[in-house]
Amino acid sequence: MPKEPKQLDELFHEGLKDLYFAEKKILAALPKMAKAANSEDLAGAFEQHEEQTEEHVKRLEQVFKIIEETPRGKNCPAIVGIIDEGEEIIKEYKNSPALDAGLVGAAQAVEHYEISRYGTLRAWAQELELDEAVSLLQETLEEEKETDSKLTELAEEVVNQEAEAV
Amino acid sequence: MPKEPKQLDELFHEGLKDLYFAEKKILAALPKMAKAANSEDLAGAFEQHEEQTEEHVKRLEQVFKIIEETPRGKNCPAIVGIIDEGEEIIKEYKNSPALDAGLVGAAQAVEHYEISRYGTLRAWAQELELDEAVSLLQETLEEEKETDSKLTELAEEVVNQEAEAV
Repeated sequence: MPKEPKQLDELFHEGLKDLYFAEKKILAALPKMAKAANSEDLAGAFEQHEEQTEEHVKRLEQVFKIIEETPRGKNCPAIVGIIDEGEEIIKEYKNSPALDAGLVGAAQAVEHYEISRYGTLRAWAQELELDEAVSLLQETLEEEKETDSKLTELAEEVVNQEAEAV
Repeated sequence: MPKEPKQLDELFHEGLKDLYFAEKKILAALPKMAKAANSEDLAGAFEQHEEQTEEHVKRLEQVFKIIEETPRGKNCPAIVGIIDEGEEIIKEYKNSPALDAGLVGAAQAVEHYEISRYGTLRAWAQELELDEAVSLLQETLEEEKETDSKLTELAEEVVNQEAEAV
């Protein structure tokens, strides 16, 4: 018997697993980024975002519950690649005044990945009429956008000047 | 003799190589996405973006020239991962009405990766007082943002409805 073509609800479930894996990877990476940062403000921003990310993981677990699925991650090569690039920067720019500029760049790549994925999942949830899931995804989407804006400010105000100061 | 710590100009050069590699990968992926898309509007959007991407590659080559470096890419695992996820969607959702929704999601992940990288490079170029590079990077950044907005419209207007139509 030929398999039924996959539908939007499956795409939504796959996307959710991808993002669940990504958030957990990010949760593991943030303390390393906070430890590496030269600027206290930047370290503080990473620490604050770690707390938020714990909340994001819980919200995704609520969305799994809404669609009656067990929370489970699925290997997401995109976020693995983005985080690996960040770790490479930590290694290669250790002791460099440009380290913080590199860390902000890496963190913004992470934020934009999440912004695109949460935006997509929210649109699919809307189409699937999963209203509670739409609210949960929207809440996290807004926090990711705020984090991205904060990183832009930090980059402009502090980090790039430090990188040039030597 | 200990090596000098790396500086912002090196970070900029590394970022440029990363993005040059990414744009070329995207250029190779776009025709496959256009061919796979069910919606003519979506296929058209991918084709139009392919033309823009050729321009983006040329602009990056101009930036290499400004910093007196040879245009050369550097393996960027992040974009490889993002594009692999898109190709997986093409394979798994072939013949599914949800395919286009998946393609838009994959394309928006690409756009957001580029938005973050161009934003970062533009900020660094500004700090390094590379005014001409700032303009070139800004121009592409705006086109990537426009493409992302167009994809959001396409997703809302056409794609998700098709996905639900079966």
